Amino acid sequence: MSKNRQSPDQEAIEESSSGASAEDRLIEKYFRPIATHPGAFGLGDDAAAIAPPPGCDLVLTTDGVISGVHFFPNDPPEAVARKALRINLSDLAAKGAAPLGFLMSIALPQDFAPGWLEGFARALAEDAALYRCPLLGGDTDRSPGGVMVHIAALGTVPHGTMVRRAGARAGDRIVVTGTIGDAALGLVLRKDPAAAERWKLDGAMRQHLLDRYLVPQPRNAIAEAVRRCASAAIDVSDGLAGDLAKLARASGIGADVAAESVPLSAAARRVLDAEPAQIETILTGGDDFEIIAAVAPGQLEGFRGAARSASLDVTEIGTVVAQPCETRFLATDGRALTFKRPSYSHF
Amino acid sequence: MSKNRQSPDQEAIEESSSGASAEDRLIEKYFRPIATHPGAFGLGDDAAAIAPPPGCDLVLTTDGVISGVHFFPNDPPEAVARKALRINLSDLAAKGAAPLGFLMSIALPQDFAPGWLEGFARALAEDAALYRCPLLGGDTDRSPGGVMVHIAALGTVPHGTMVRRAGARAGDRIVVTGTIGDAALGLVLRKDPAAAERWKLDGAMRQHLLDRYLVPQPRNAIAEAVRRCASAAIDVSDGLAGDLAKLARASGIGADVAAESVPLSAAARRVLDAEPAQIETILTGGDDFEIIAAVAPGQLEGFRGAARSASLDVTEIGTVVAQPCETRFLATDGRALTFKRPSYSHF
Repeated sequence: MSKNRQSPDQEAIEESSSGASAEDRLIEKYFRPIATHPGAFGLGDDAAAIAPPPGCDLVLTTDGVISGVHFFPNDPPEAVARKALRINLSDLAAKGAAPLGFLMSIALPQDFAPGWLEGFARALAEDAALYRCPLLGGDTDRSPGGVMVHIAALGTVPHGTMVRRAGARAGDRIVVTGTIGDAALGLVLRKDPAAAERWKLDGAMRQHLLDRYLVPQPRNAIAEAVRRCASAAIDVSDGLAGDLAKLARASGIGADVAAESVPLSAAARRVLDAEPAQIETILTGGDDFEIIAAVAPGQLEGFRGAARSASLDVTEIGTVVAQPCETRFLATDGRALTFKRPSYSHF
Repeated sequence: MSKNRQSPDQEAIEESSSGASAEDRLIEKYFRPIATHPGAFGLGDDAAAIAPPPGCDLVLTTDGVISGVHFFPNDPPEAVARKALRINLSDLAAKGAAPLGFLMSIALPQDFAPGWLEGFARALAEDAALYRCPLLGGDTDRSPGGVMVHIAALGTVPHGTMVRRAGARAGDRIVVTGTIGDAALGLVLRKDPAAAERWKLDGAMRQHLLDRYLVPQPRNAIAEAVRRCASAAIDVSDGLAGDLAKLARASGIGADVAAESVPLSAAARRVLDAEPAQIETILTGGDDFEIIAAVAPGQLEGFRGAARSASLDVTEIGTVVAQPCETRFLATDGRALTFKRPSYSHF
């Protein structure tokens, strides 16, 4: 683990009698226990060295979370840790890859509370163990603003088998894991708590939506089946409509989705009953971290079986069609829905 | 390349008629040309897939640069790009690894100037080509503050040959590449421009120090020799004294360095003549991105020869001694120098 360097407004530091700096001790105390891979050298070197499994391709992805952009400054540290790692694990799952490990850069305000880091590290350790994705190395910095965590995750697939966005074929069925829209509705609730009453949500429904925004549930349990059965896949981070459109563009195909077949939680259904216009939030809001896969009809039963074994719901929502690049969400009367903002974008 | 997700204070976006968002177009325009590795899929997927060279270990490192912490907000975008990549390349060089590629997360303020990103991407492309280290994937985000760039770099070494911090043995010679202290003095000049006059620097000397702070020169040209000849190595990011102490601690040895043998540029020597107390800045300031290596006497000539071939100076500055963990910088009168802050730390 490398501490970071010289800074324009550098601060005085203290060294313990052992010569280890406060930053070294912080790394040793909080992050070393998560670096269980022997090639991480207990975070005691500048880099990790790992022998990739023979015959495998490395699958590489990176994503960060920034306070005030991807999470709220008062979110619990445990949730921040889980979100930072899980949004990367979700990419690996959608590509059919098994997690190998991750690198992490964390920037903390000068005055961060030690308890914050303790909660963060505990949850990160739990998730690293749960998903078999150890910390391989990292970097600690001071942040001029709030907390920022950037993770690069490595996974593996047998050579040549990473599931691409490209590859969907006309006639493939479009399936999606879990339920759609909960996280985006949870975000609305965070910004407008009064919506819970307007939507007539009971306490459990409200909590379900808030939890789905706070802590993603990546579908790594089904990654192996995605790899075996899907002709193309993507995880839903920018919204079902936008991410399906990306898969369609990359594959050079179109997609017809029956809007009413999109799987919804009881909470999301209640919201939709109260305010039908929220269909746009549900289909385009993002942060679902479910998997959209195009699956050939002959592979469908195998995919469903794997999902059952993983206690995970998968739902057929539509069909891949030959018209290039046109993704339509069809209402029960056959009309295509139109969206004000089909996909999330930072710029 | 993944755009990033739902945000607490999400902004409206525009989609072009092709369905690609402003963020997609930004990635396509500026970063896709740097993603020359076929496994990066032109940044058109959620992850890269690369087949690691057979018989090799992957060497993995991550480091970030944050505006106001690691660079000045008014630094040129070209310098920010080069610093972000090169501090990671420097870690690979010190570990004896050849660059394989990198992942990048970049966060930009909502109102960034398009010209800024153009300069950044152009310099990043040049460095990616120069160091044969293509962009493999990435992530773009909005920053609530200034620009932040986090890079995870991958390198390779033949299996089991990564050069560690641990491994130095009593009797090894301690060698260092290039010159020490320039970048730290350059940072002093950035914060206190009047120092140039106090130190009697001519224009070229002043510029040399400023440049050394602004744009690191990682020693990847000598990485192969480090791997063949060094028993231990580390790059100098937190200061020569502090980073040598880390190597010593990891190796369970001590180090005696003759302070006057530490290689200095003409500019640094002029500073020292004018203000001898700046020896502390030089030896502990950091941001040098030179390599410290412990080299057995029998390997020394081979190491020197490789350095000559790479037109790189290497200088013997001391000897590894058996006393565990004691690193001494000895003045000409034999006294050990003491430092107020032996190494940089963010906390």
